[in-house]
Amino acid sequence: MSIIDNDLKIRVKHLQNELQKTEMDGCLISSNVNIFYLTGMIFSGYLYVPTEGESHYFVKRPEGVVCENVDYIYKPEQIPNLLKNKGLKLPETLLLEVDELVYSEYIRLQSVFQPKKTGNATTLMRNLRSIKTQFEIEQLRFSAKRHIEVYSEIQKCYRKGISDLDLQIEIEYIMRKRGSIGIFRAFGANMDNFMGTVLAGENAAAPAPYDFALGGAGNSCAMPIGANGTILKDGMTVMVDMAGNFSPYITDMSRVFSVGKIDQKAINAHNVSLLIHNELKNIAKPGFSCAELYNETLKIVEKENLSPYFMGTTQQAKFVGHGIGLQINEPPVLSPRSKEVLQKNMVFAFEPKFVIPKIGAVGIENSYLVTDTGIENLTIFEENIIPF
Amino acid sequence: MSIIDNDLKIRVKHLQNELQKTEMDGCLISSNVNIFYLTGMIFSGYLYVPTEGESHYFVKRPEGVVCENVDYIYKPEQIPNLLKNKGLKLPETLLLEVDELVYSEYIRLQSVFQPKKTGNATTLMRNLRSIKTQFEIEQLRFSAKRHIEVYSEIQKCYRKGISDLDLQIEIEYIMRKRGSIGIFRAFGANMDNFMGTVLAGENAAAPAPYDFALGGAGNSCAMPIGANGTILKDGMTVMVDMAGNFSPYITDMSRVFSVGKIDQKAINAHNVSLLIHNELKNIAKPGFSCAELYNETLKIVEKENLSPYFMGTTQQAKFVGHGIGLQINEPPVLSPRSKEVLQKNMVFAFEPKFVIPKIGAVGIENSYLVTDTGIENLTIFEENIIPF
Repeated sequence: MSIIDNDLKIRVKHLQNELQKTEMDGCLISSNVNIFYLTGMIFSGYLYVPTEGESHYFVKRPEGVVCENVDYIYKPEQIPNLLKNKGLKLPETLLLEVDELVYSEYIRLQSVFQPKKTGNATTLMRNLRSIKTQFEIEQLRFSAKRHIEVYSEIQKCYRKGISDLDLQIEIEYIMRKRGSIGIFRAFGANMDNFMGTVLAGENAAAPAPYDFALGGAGNSCAMPIGANGTILKDGMTVMVDMAGNFSPYITDMSRVFSVGKIDQKAINAHNVSLLIHNELKNIAKPGFSCAELYNETLKIVEKENLSPYFMGTTQQAKFVGHGIGLQINEPPVLSPRSKEVLQKNMVFAFEPKFVIPKIGAVGIENSYLVTDTGIENLTIFEENIIPF
Repeated sequence: MSIIDNDLKIRVKHLQNELQKTEMDGCLISSNVNIFYLTGMIFSGYLYVPTEGESHYFVKRPEGVVCENVDYIYKPEQIPNLLKNKGLKLPETLLLEVDELVYSEYIRLQSVFQPKKTGNATTLMRNLRSIKTQFEIEQLRFSAKRHIEVYSEIQKCYRKGISDLDLQIEIEYIMRKRGSIGIFRAFGANMDNFMGTVLAGENAAAPAPYDFALGGAGNSCAMPIGANGTILKDGMTVMVDMAGNFSPYITDMSRVFSVGKIDQKAINAHNVSLLIHNELKNIAKPGFSCAELYNETLKIVEKENLSPYFMGTTQQAKFVGHGIGLQINEPPVLSPRSKEVLQKNMVFAFEPKFVIPKIGAVGIENSYLVTDTGIENLTIFEENIIPF
């Protein structure tokens, strides 16, 4: 059995272990990200995972999927008979993806299965996915390695008078040449994004509609986030937060570049971010509370009198870190009221950032793996402000 | 009043005209695409459009939205009181976006408003959006112009031994430099895509999970569509179907390039596609049935004995055209069982394509505007197979 096949079996087994703790007979998966997580491929259709026994694939597209237990269907209404033909019972209690399925699809599936009881597959799957397998960790390491290679080429992209957007386009080109898969998945229906953001100068303070750490005005009313055409000028910082989507698993990493000489205030705030990362490395380990990590961060921020600049000015993000994996915003969330604790093999991005008026964003973001005893930085790269 | 403000008022008025034909008191909009359509901006929150009277904006993010009738909220549960405070009645019957809202959000909104009756805002909005205003048509013309400029640079991107993926990356770079906004919106939760597709040789026949015209194996199991790393070789065709996302409104256009000398069979099939486009220009006009357009196409395809190659081989798409606008897959759909008819100011992509075994995809796709008396091609560019 290949490493990937073995890993997929482990993931399904983990799901079934969780299902056994519930009163549910099974779980029906239909979102791309969860189908991919459990099968290693993306198809249009449904994956039925019973609490005990083998998974069944009900595939609308593409034709020619190679695996066991496949039935081709053109509508979900065919599934009950297909299950019966296999001698299987229909689930009487069923988890559905309540935060991924649109209302009309959910109602349709409910009418197909007529379960006595339904439950939330989204939360279960997101929690399951937050603990990575060894194979997934290797995929994240692979993305991190490429991510670092791309960041090491950013200085070369700079030329006097370039705009933030043109700089971003050069970085995107390098990313794609180095294997970026292009898409960059986020949880939540309204989370538009494209390859990441480059924030120069005051644009770092512009609020955006999306639940990312920082905003930026964007270059189009249809895509109001990130670079807005600002010409890079002396005294500005440029925060690069482009996606590490070099495998299905996304790493997250931000670094700051400076144009000419920048004010000491920005350098000091940047150093506070590095200090916070060091504090994180001292305290973070399995069992540590994610809310506590946020609060410890805030203590340092307050002590340094940087609260007005923390995670934005006009609009401040209420988290300082988030899980990463197949999506950029997985559990756990490092926010004041998070109920989560770090667990071994979670991978999360940590991004204490400051927006300094008239200068720009400072601070760094790394992707950390939770180990047996602490955390390991996957995105090792120059952390000081890098001069253009 | 600016042209855009005036246009937005027209769109809201059209929506209210449609609402008046129903028994609904109003409509609550929360998807990015429909919020953008009705307000010209994207925000996180809700737009309430009553059947009569002014729209109300309930904004979670970003702070600082500039318009009338705005309330900042952090949860939808605040909306009823805010409406009451304005002296407005709560809607007793309400349209919600059943095909855009995830189940859990829909249930939450239903519990917030407790309407006696709900209905489908998705279908209504999609039909409304299918008839473009003059401003929207200008935006589509703008995208088409840039789209054509990019396609005129594709030949320059070719070099001997280049892969389909590297060619696509060069095209993406030109697109971004010429103002592509990057994202490329599609209707439907599971429609992954990235800037478009380049299909070379036999990869054109590879089936994909997505409901696009053709597939391609893709270069990652997490993104199984489009270029798969095929090295371009003599005798292959290369179909370029990259997005015209140079404004919020997307044009759609495919052209075929050839490497070395290609088989006459492919050229003949390509010419049948051109013939079908000419037939379309002869018959398409307001009032013409979309199913009929599909069936007329199929007649020509069958007469030319090209059915086994039409819209794919392994997996054949069951449509030959689709509306375009803020999303790449709007109404109308040109499929055998479509109930729609062409209406003035619809804009649709028409793409009779063939996949020729061992050679690749041929045929062209244009974006057409429905005029008073016929259709106008927005994507005028060389239609014959273009040699690299």
